[in-house]
Amino acid sequence: MPSYTAPTKDLQFVLHDVLKVTESKTPGYEDLEPDFTSAILEEAGKLTSEVLAPLNAVGDKEGCRLENGVVYTPKGFKEAFEKVKEGGWTGLDMPEEYGGQNMPYVLGTAVGEMFSAANQAFTMYQGLTHGAASAILAHGTDAQKDTYLPKMVSCEWTGTMNLTEPHCGTDLGLMRTKAAPQDDGSYKISGQKIFISSGEHDMADNIIHLVLAKIEGGPEGIKGVSLFIVPKFMVNEDGSLGERNGVSVGSIEEKMGIHGNSTCVMNYDGATGYLLGTEHKGMRAMFTMMNEARVGVGMQGLAQAEVAYQNAVIYANDRLQGRAVTGAEAPEKAADPLIVHPDIRRSLMDQKSFVEAARAFILWGATMIDAAHRAEDKDADGLVSLLTPVIKGFLTDQGYDMTVKAQQVYGGHGYIEEWGMSQFTRDARIAQIYEGANGVQALDLVGRKLAQDGGKHVMAFFDLVKGFIKDNAGQDAEFDAAFLDPLKAASKDLQFAGMYFMQNGMKNPNHALAGSNDFMHMFGHVCLGLMWAKMGLAAKEALKNGSGDATFYETKLATGRYYMARQLPATALHLTRIQSGADTVMALEAANF
Amino acid sequence: MPSYTAPTKDLQFVLHDVLKVTESKTPGYEDLEPDFTSAILEEAGKLTSEVLAPLNAVGDKEGCRLENGVVYTPKGFKEAFEKVKEGGWTGLDMPEEYGGQNMPYVLGTAVGEMFSAANQAFTMYQGLTHGAASAILAHGTDAQKDTYLPKMVSCEWTGTMNLTEPHCGTDLGLMRTKAAPQDDGSYKISGQKIFISSGEHDMADNIIHLVLAKIEGGPEGIKGVSLFIVPKFMVNEDGSLGERNGVSVGSIEEKMGIHGNSTCVMNYDGATGYLLGTEHKGMRAMFTMMNEARVGVGMQGLAQAEVAYQNAVIYANDRLQGRAVTGAEAPEKAADPLIVHPDIRRSLMDQKSFVEAARAFILWGATMIDAAHRAEDKDADGLVSLLTPVIKGFLTDQGYDMTVKAQQVYGGHGYIEEWGMSQFTRDARIAQIYEGANGVQALDLVGRKLAQDGGKHVMAFFDLVKGFIKDNAGQDAEFDAAFLDPLKAASKDLQFAGMYFMQNGMKNPNHALAGSNDFMHMFGHVCLGLMWAKMGLAAKEALKNGSGDATFYETKLATGRYYMARQLPATALHLTRIQSGADTVMALEAANF
Repeated sequence: MPSYTAPTKDLQFVLHDVLKVTESKTPGYEDLEPDFTSAILEEAGKLTSEVLAPLNAVGDKEGCRLENGVVYTPKGFKEAFEKVKEGGWTGLDMPEEYGGQNMPYVLGTAVGEMFSAANQAFTMYQGLTHGAASAILAHGTDAQKDTYLPKMVSCEWTGTMNLTEPHCGTDLGLMRTKAAPQDDGSYKISGQKIFISSGEHDMADNIIHLVLAKIEGGPEGIKGVSLFIVPKFMVNEDGSLGERNGVSVGSIEEKMGIHGNSTCVMNYDGATGYLLGTEHKGMRAMFTMMNEARVGVGMQGLAQAEVAYQNAVIYANDRLQGRAVTGAEAPEKAADPLIVHPDIRRSLMDQKSFVEAARAFILWGATMIDAAHRAEDKDADGLVSLLTPVIKGFLTDQGYDMTVKAQQVYGGHGYIEEWGMSQFTRDARIAQIYEGANGVQALDLVGRKLAQDGGKHVMAFFDLVKGFIKDNAGQDAEFDAAFLDPLKAASKDLQFAGMYFMQNGMKNPNHALAGSNDFMHMFGHVCLGLMWAKMGLAAKEALKNGSGDATFYETKLATGRYYMARQLPATALHLTRIQSGADTVMALEAANF
Repeated sequence: MPSYTAPTKDLQFVLHDVLKVTESKTPGYEDLEPDFTSAILEEAGKLTSEVLAPLNAVGDKEGCRLENGVVYTPKGFKEAFEKVKEGGWTGLDMPEEYGGQNMPYVLGTAVGEMFSAANQAFTMYQGLTHGAASAILAHGTDAQKDTYLPKMVSCEWTGTMNLTEPHCGTDLGLMRTKAAPQDDGSYKISGQKIFISSGEHDMADNIIHLVLAKIEGGPEGIKGVSLFIVPKFMVNEDGSLGERNGVSVGSIEEKMGIHGNSTCVMNYDGATGYLLGTEHKGMRAMFTMMNEARVGVGMQGLAQAEVAYQNAVIYANDRLQGRAVTGAEAPEKAADPLIVHPDIRRSLMDQKSFVEAARAFILWGATMIDAAHRAEDKDADGLVSLLTPVIKGFLTDQGYDMTVKAQQVYGGHGYIEEWGMSQFTRDARIAQIYEGANGVQALDLVGRKLAQDGGKHVMAFFDLVKGFIKDNAGQDAEFDAAFLDPLKAASKDLQFAGMYFMQNGMKNPNHALAGSNDFMHMFGHVCLGLMWAKMGLAAKEALKNGSGDATFYETKLATGRYYMARQLPATALHLTRIQSGADTVMALEAANF
């Protein structure tokens, strides 16, 4: 069975050596002293590696079971969920007035990586609750907040998000679920929703469904969609639970992975719902927390890559097979460990150099979300809004590929479920799809975010990269050549791609959209390149100051050099594809595929 | 449920317009007239799409079941296997004297693609039998051939290959299975083998296991490995079945995919075995059919990509979601079909341009195997030996990626098992692993095949590409720019990579091996680029001659242009990585991963 070790040292490095969180002016960051964050991370690491990780394979094998309208979660989930609640982990970054601990989102994100890596299917129960609670926090009335938030912050009640219907996922304007206004101000919700994660289960007293529906007589299409709170059990005035509402689970989907999470078909048969936010503005209410939700999914890509990588390293050190081409390295053994072979190292370095930079990228993004929420920093809000589709799309695409590489290190054993490597790929696969499939992320990036606020945010990004290079170049020729020069070249590729879109997308938007996936990926590479340059610099400084574990910092530099030499140059290929335009992409009649 | 339509027109195009098989001097090719191959392909297409494809999901869901030492295959497999046998499909390219039809391997390969695409797990039962029969054909005594081949050619008896043991896969020198010589010339085989495809099942009267084992007292390591025939039931002098041999199934592995095939742990407890070929030369016997077996696995990569692509196209045309950015294309409908969106097209074109060129590549490889076997063409043998790791490694890596892309077109529905797209990815995944994991293919290519016969075969490959360009350039500027120029550039990249290995691999072989995976992939791209140039030329000729369906040929040209513009330039990235050398790859101590 695979194991999981929480990467607390790496998280501390990013928070303190790279992002220097305590120097930030964002309110709340003054509390994030290294000792404090270390204590939190160590505690979370213990819980995730000792309690959640061992349940990961159990959840995969056993799955969820629907019997007479009741969904049973896998053995051990309920007890583990109690431990998570007891530890106060579910409300780490939620407001104190609702029982949370009001920690910055960046700390919630660091902890969240561990939870996702240890057990993604399990963690989704609290993750969806966090998302639903955030929506109520942002858009609910005081009464709604008082009714739902304390129980949701503690996860005594869990939450769900109901968007998709059988005939519509991305295009929610086609939605058919109806909301009929009642005299008492409530609505009767009727329709069917599918792919509802954590839709029904046995781990909470109540489930608070957030449901998109169309109020009868409202505007056509997406402009007539509203958001509703639909509790599984009605909540009485005194907060006690009343009768069962008209919502029920139709079936549990058989999925490729995340078997431990109950993905439900939900049927709403005149269920009582309460408008959340303004009528017909449901999409806006849903989207205010989209950055956060999508960063969370990007994190899942990283998290599965991390745990898969950890196990691939263990196997590569344990498994004896063949001899190093340069001469036996373990002559006393029957064969050398796999890790002596250059192609195994190539694969492990791909994984290592990805996960470490992805971690820095996500935590950097989380600091911008904090700055936006806690300090009303509009620039941070704009920049993270631009980067969100990159975090979601690039990190989940790459994260998936890394789990496949980790699985490959195991050879035939990687294909056998017993070893657990298959589960990492099967679980990681969903992150490329949900919360907006990655093609939609690319479309959001190129079709919307690039030009947002007159292109201000993408220009700010380029300035940031340029400024970083300028500030640090010319002091260390080796660092310039290994880190800054490749970053400069990749950033230029990205700028050329943006220019291509500007020059050609006006005439024909297909010239931009045909390159959207490539653009998202090259943007991702530039971001990870920037992260490696920053991490490399931090490592150099630490080495110069003689602080801490020199091997740790030297390993950082070596891993960064690998990324810059082997991964970052992918931007040139993406640029070539983008500059080839839309003609070859759009050439065929639909009938000729 | 997914469907499968046999690509008979595309196969005919490759056989006749591109490879021009009837013009070949290889004995047997004179029979391959278009009408004849068409009749065979249509018949196979009917069987595979109507009988095998509908059982694919059944096999995945039901899997194989072990009860009291008996393995039960999924419902319907047995009846389908009878139909396959009745049609004579199992001996298509086997010698007539053993009941086969003596067709060229290229035709067996074309038919094999359909079988694999329709139902990979099912097809493995006959595929393994074909492999085992080929080994007996090449190395068996006349008596062995007479005893086993007629029944194996008809698949009344099936076959297996037993290489892997719990502690060794790639490094078979570590093998522990023993063979003790007996007075009657037979051996007693004892040991455990794992990952044995089709190891035990209920579809054949007997199972002929080919087992690698070490004869006691023989040389150490890989030089002491011999190959044995171990029948499940002993075969009497008169060909009737005798008592059960000392071989039994220990368990069936739980795998990520190919659930319809029984992957067994096989226990040999003093089982009677008969030496096949020369003692201690078991690896050589195994490897004589390796080219064929690995081309067959490469074909599985293509086959899963093909069937996944077909279903992605159907879904992209059916599913209404969003509007074309250039204006509604189906204004009478609630939304446009997915296929209007540029990023969906990009994905479909990636898939289409891969499968069509991969098909040509494999069939070209098969013609070389025929030339080697039927005309003792040493050059063809050398070239296909060089290209075999490329066919196996590149086509299964890319084939898997294409199934993932096809799955992605389905959005959330791609993740739900009911739609069947997940199975294509899960089944395709094994082809990257078995018959030599792809890292081993890359090692074989760079560490062994490149320098084989003084580098003669790789030089022949470059001459072939150069000659093709020279013969066809200067006649059509558009064709030169779209096809020949990119091919020339990619081929140059490949040559530069080869030169880098020569110049640096001598000093330190890690400089070559750290680039082996990239080299295999860039070689694959150049091969597919060559195939597209050849297919483009054939399409141009057909259009000029006014023969056949103009749309078909124009679509070929358009698809080729896509590959040349968007996929082939990947060679430059691979070259960059290769030229960065081994230093960043090998920098870390094993303990620092």
